[in-house]
Amino acid sequence: MFETAELCSQIDKKDYKKQLPELRAGLLQAQFALSKTNTPVIIIVSGIDAAGRGDVVNALNEWLDTRGLETIALDSLTDEESERPYYWRFWRQLPARGRIGIFFGGWYVDPILQTAYQKMKKAHLHEALTLMRRFETMLVEDGALILKFWLHLSKQEQRKRLNKLQKNPHTRRSVSERDWKHAKLYQQFLEAAETAIRQTDSGNAPWLLVEATDWRYRNLTVARTVLETLHKHLEAQSSTTRKSANSKTNLDTIDLNQRLDNKQYREEEIPPNLFSKEKISDSKTILDTVDLNQRLDNKEYRDELETYQGKLHRLAWAAYQKKCSTIIVFEGWDAAGKGGAIRRMTQVMDARLYRVISIAAPTDEERAHHYLWRFWRHIARAGRVTIYDRSWYGRVLVERVEEFAKDKEWQRAYLEINDFEEQLVKHGSIIIKFWVHISKDEQLRRFQEREQIPYKQHKITEEDWRNREKWEDYTIAVNEMVTRTSTHFAPWALVAGDDKRFARLQILKTVCERLETVL
Amino acid sequence: MFETAELCSQIDKKDYKKQLPELRAGLLQAQFALSKTNTPVIIIVSGIDAAGRGDVVNALNEWLDTRGLETIALDSLTDEESERPYYWRFWRQLPARGRIGIFFGGWYVDPILQTAYQKMKKAHLHEALTLMRRFETMLVEDGALILKFWLHLSKQEQRKRLNKLQKNPHTRRSVSERDWKHAKLYQQFLEAAETAIRQTDSGNAPWLLVEATDWRYRNLTVARTVLETLHKHLEAQSSTTRKSANSKTNLDTIDLNQRLDNKQYREEEIPPNLFSKEKISDSKTILDTVDLNQRLDNKEYRDELETYQGKLHRLAWAAYQKKCSTIIVFEGWDAAGKGGAIRRMTQVMDARLYRVISIAAPTDEERAHHYLWRFWRHIARAGRVTIYDRSWYGRVLVERVEEFAKDKEWQRAYLEINDFEEQLVKHGSIIIKFWVHISKDEQLRRFQEREQIPYKQHKITEEDWRNREKWEDYTIAVNEMVTRTSTHFAPWALVAGDDKRFARLQILKTVCERLETVL
Repeated sequence: MFETAELCSQIDKKDYKKQLPELRAGLLQAQFALSKTNTPVIIIVSGIDAAGRGDVVNALNEWLDTRGLETIALDSLTDEESERPYYWRFWRQLPARGRIGIFFGGWYVDPILQTAYQKMKKAHLHEALTLMRRFETMLVEDGALILKFWLHLSKQEQRKRLNKLQKNPHTRRSVSERDWKHAKLYQQFLEAAETAIRQTDSGNAPWLLVEATDWRYRNLTVARTVLETLHKHLEAQSSTTRKSANSKTNLDTIDLNQRLDNKQYREEEIPPNLFSKEKISDSKTILDTVDLNQRLDNKEYRDELETYQGKLHRLAWAAYQKKCSTIIVFEGWDAAGKGGAIRRMTQVMDARLYRVISIAAPTDEERAHHYLWRFWRHIARAGRVTIYDRSWYGRVLVERVEEFAKDKEWQRAYLEINDFEEQLVKHGSIIIKFWVHISKDEQLRRFQEREQIPYKQHKITEEDWRNREKWEDYTIAVNEMVTRTSTHFAPWALVAGDDKRFARLQILKTVCERLETVL
Repeated sequence: MFETAELCSQIDKKDYKKQLPELRAGLLQAQFALSKTNTPVIIIVSGIDAAGRGDVVNALNEWLDTRGLETIALDSLTDEESERPYYWRFWRQLPARGRIGIFFGGWYVDPILQTAYQKMKKAHLHEALTLMRRFETMLVEDGALILKFWLHLSKQEQRKRLNKLQKNPHTRRSVSERDWKHAKLYQQFLEAAETAIRQTDSGNAPWLLVEATDWRYRNLTVARTVLETLHKHLEAQSSTTRKSANSKTNLDTIDLNQRLDNKQYREEEIPPNLFSKEKISDSKTILDTVDLNQRLDNKEYRDELETYQGKLHRLAWAAYQKKCSTIIVFEGWDAAGKGGAIRRMTQVMDARLYRVISIAAPTDEERAHHYLWRFWRHIARAGRVTIYDRSWYGRVLVERVEEFAKDKEWQRAYLEINDFEEQLVKHGSIIIKFWVHISKDEQLRRFQEREQIPYKQHKITEEDWRNREKWEDYTIAVNEMVTRTSTHFAPWALVAGDDKRFARLQILKTVCERLETVL
């Protein structure tokens, strides 16, 4: 999940200075317009230590009008608080309609920390998250706007920061023993955070992952998201108010009507999509991290292929004996070489052990069910390998880009897919997911080759060319897919596909390594 | 929760025979209309042993066209099933669009039984219920219609049935050792069921509690609910289709459009209210169970009052020392005697220990928040007694009846209120809830008395007379309120209020008894 927040995204000083005045003016305007509505706004700024949560909160306080704003930083429970149910501390701090409440960490801090420290069991974390989701849903149904930011740093970057803070005599005091203790649990902390984010990332109250390495990028991304979301909300609201204004007769009831309209609107609203084109057009995507120059010469390839194919042959039998199912998912650009990579695996496995399922348009029967039904029905018995050539991710790739699925449909699919995969993993399956990446130039070369070589002509269609035109849209979809569905139990592997030999081996190796760690 | 399913509701033979032909014709028509749509229908028939789940399923099979119907009765996991994630068994049995699937017990059987047998911990039950809720939400968002029936029998009635079945040589075999074992755990079973129903009773996929003592009432109630829900759904759907038909140009796309419309409609639909007026107008409500003839003579009253007031005095101090908070909620008809009963308690408690909060129209500040905010803010510190003269239940009583709240708002309030009270109880508070009941005649007598006695005139307003006209609507609202919010951790007590002395003592006794069991 955090891969897309380790892309070294940054904004340079000049650009920052250029963007800031307009942004600040926009924020103040939006805040003023908000104060005339019945919408309370809740902004949660959370993230890992040293990522600069305080700086972000300070920036928002500086850029917004503090008269319509509260900042809520909660420390350990007070006497007063501990004598009441846990949520009392949040209820008493909720912003009124028309106001903004910025929660430092929000209700997420405790459960994540306690899980990282293994003081809270998984089942109890689950319970706590359910409570959070219901709390947020209740507020949103009542008209609130909730925005949640998670500021991320890589492990290295976090250490670097802590060291730097400690060396500076002015900031030394801000680094405590506890910070170093937390830092040691980086991995556990991240895993708990991932679970929390995944389970509470609803259309109602979405999370935005923010890369926090560059402070300008970080602060600007948060502020711009706040602004855009406010804009969208205010716009939609004013259009509904205008619509209903015609039917108003009694001036006394305007206030009430407005409130009802506001809610009405919220119920029909399409949740803000925080990964939209505008948002990332000027920043990097996860695909930029793939080094497409990686190559393998033929000799090396032959040797390694033999080694790993032999391994896979043995591992497939071992998995069968241990009744451990393996699910391998292939997604990637057209002509990225998925088929060739799959064949390198199936060549060496016993035909009774594996099945390759190619996903094309659904059948009539499949169309008559929920879109996940067709994948549930294909789940293999224990100990088998199932290879999907394209998969349920079509929902958030082709169906999103081609608008076969409505916004709401593909947006809720991330949660549904994560739930689906979690059930598989909890049952003991291994899930390995590949995005096979190639450059746009390499795709062109392969398309042209396919058109020229007679026995490859069936592999290239008009549709491939059409898809190619939507490269940008797909890139955005892939970036969001990896952000939202790369989980600790079913991570994505990005494969450098410009060199077919390199790609095939990377895939074989990854499969073998995952199987080896589990078996 | 189950109180409203122990009212001895029944339908006599003649009435049953009269209603049946029309009902059956209606069911077949609705089913035929359904088959032309893209809606899959899922009916879950669950309940306690011997309540006649099988009979209900048989009746539905007899009355519907079995060609568009599947009945799914799942036993213990098969080999095939145990090799896949748990939900695989349900996915493979889901009905296609236009068809009906009747699930015997559905996904609820196992978790409830295992919790009753203490093989499943509360936290895991919670996790399982979250999974169910998500599963159902996913299907509903995709266009499915889900109806869940819980057939209820009182403990006595269950025993009577099992005995009768065992005595009859023809049915003896259907009663197993296991049935008796389950019956012994009646209370645990009911508590687990209550939790499951409460946590999964959403507007999307509502539960209907059915009193199963009289088979005619039981079968007819289930079938009528199925019919009404189908009707509502089909009507709403056809009106949307008609609306959008005007904008259609391409005949080929009709099918797709219809499906989208269908979903569109579902997203905006007000969830079916299974406790609607039509449903209970010919049956009893929970208020019919209150024996209003109960009286207490003055001598007896004086003696007992002294005893229990003394007790309450001591218990309030004991609760304070143990830091155990008590929340006492008063709801009831106008002039039912809430104020007098409250004074009999406050007379004897130390003023530092209690607070009486009268709930009238919200303040401006309160209106600027979620409706529960005003109650959260009043939560007292540990060890105090808080008495609410009217409460958060206004949301599902006056706000519902007077249409101050929209249907969606009061319908989702049950879940919100249960969550709220559960948090209080988990934190160690005791919640005692009274509905003070009087007859309509007695209310009239008191109203007239108030109008005649000068110092009581301020207690009677035009509004009281207006409320009185809505007696029926309030009765329905009270019945639903008790059904949905009488939980094992915060049950309702219905007080017979026609005799003020009797009512006051019943209340005092109940409070003392609840405090005694906890302290």
